[in-house]
Amino acid sequence: MSDRLTAQMAFLNEACKLKSVTRGTQLCDGSRYENSGEHSWHIALYALTLSEHAPEGVSIHRVIQMLLLHDLVEIDAGDAPIFGDHDPAEMAELEQAAATRIFGLLPPDQAAAFRALWDEFEANETPDAQFAKSLDRFQPPNQNLASGGGSWVDYDTQWDQFETRVAAKIANGAPSLWDWLRPRAAAWFKANR
Amino acid sequence: MSDRLTAQMAFLNEACKLKSVTRGTQLCDGSRYENSGEHSWHIALYALTLSEHAPEGVSIHRVIQMLLLHDLVEIDAGDAPIFGDHDPAEMAELEQAAATRIFGLLPPDQAAAFRALWDEFEANETPDAQFAKSLDRFQPPNQNLASGGGSWVDYDTQWDQFETRVAAKIANGAPSLWDWLRPRAAAWFKANR
Repeated sequence: MSDRLTAQMAFLNEACKLKSVTRGTQLCDGSRYENSGEHSWHIALYALTLSEHAPEGVSIHRVIQMLLLHDLVEIDAGDAPIFGDHDPAEMAELEQAAATRIFGLLPPDQAAAFRALWDEFEANETPDAQFAKSLDRFQPPNQNLASGGGSWVDYDTQWDQFETRVAAKIANGAPSLWDWLRPRAAAWFKANR
Repeated sequence: MSDRLTAQMAFLNEACKLKSVTRGTQLCDGSRYENSGEHSWHIALYALTLSEHAPEGVSIHRVIQMLLLHDLVEIDAGDAPIFGDHDPAEMAELEQAAATRIFGLLPPDQAAAFRALWDEFEANETPDAQFAKSLDRFQPPNQNLASGGGSWVDYDTQWDQFETRVAAKIANGAPSLWDWLRPRAAAWFKANR
């Protein structure tokens, strides 16, 4: 057990680096940009708080586990802001290599289990993954609304980009959250674009 | 459902402030002090990763939920560094008022459920709470070891203070984690005190 714990602690110390990965989203008060560690906490709290809005059959425990793990690959691959320009294929390759290295710090059985959860999140096909992915897309617009525009201002985002890159994914996994957000986001774009 | 969601989003936007509460612990690389939002993510990841070291009967799902919520009161009460000087009774009073205000943003049934989880964590009597509290005490020494001393240097901590304020709580809820940490922490204190 002691060898397993030593490997697990190497993984957890490596994970600490996620607190130094900066995202494109600002805190609600606009005081600075968010990091991926605190973002991961916040959306796990979203999952816990908003579980009643998940489609039937979703396991909120598995959703929370996915969200705790979902951004670890950014330690190597960095965060790709949703309205930024990046090559999705290149990003996916970087993230695959990162997953192999970072989950590979764990004992093999646990590495495989965590990797399977991350793969499931990325594939966005199961209801659990779709709800988790919806929350990952639902949080930034709410912080943008709170901070006065945030990444929408930084990237000069237009409504059609928002609909394509964000709204579709929220609506896919959590339709009721999109119904709530839509008029609020639309009002911001109407006033500012 | 829309009114409930509006209340839940007010809670989640308020929770964002936890990312601006600074703790006494430094990141593993010593580059800056940690905030309570990213700390909450990290120890929820500790719980997920170290679940096999929990005493029998512990529900890791409930432990993770407690850890996601455990520091929210610091939005009003601030973080009391473990080796710092503060009046525990005054701190407890501040935290009780904070819990009432912050969980009170939620719909009443959910406010009561979250408050019950937080009360259970604070009381440190159930096996779930004891394991959660152990993880909350287990992470900072590991970050101190990684960063070359961290809060032990800042507060000129002595071994007996560490044993009383930290080790006892880790050993209480997660004896195998304390067995692993003890020789590593002892080596640091022997070399530096």
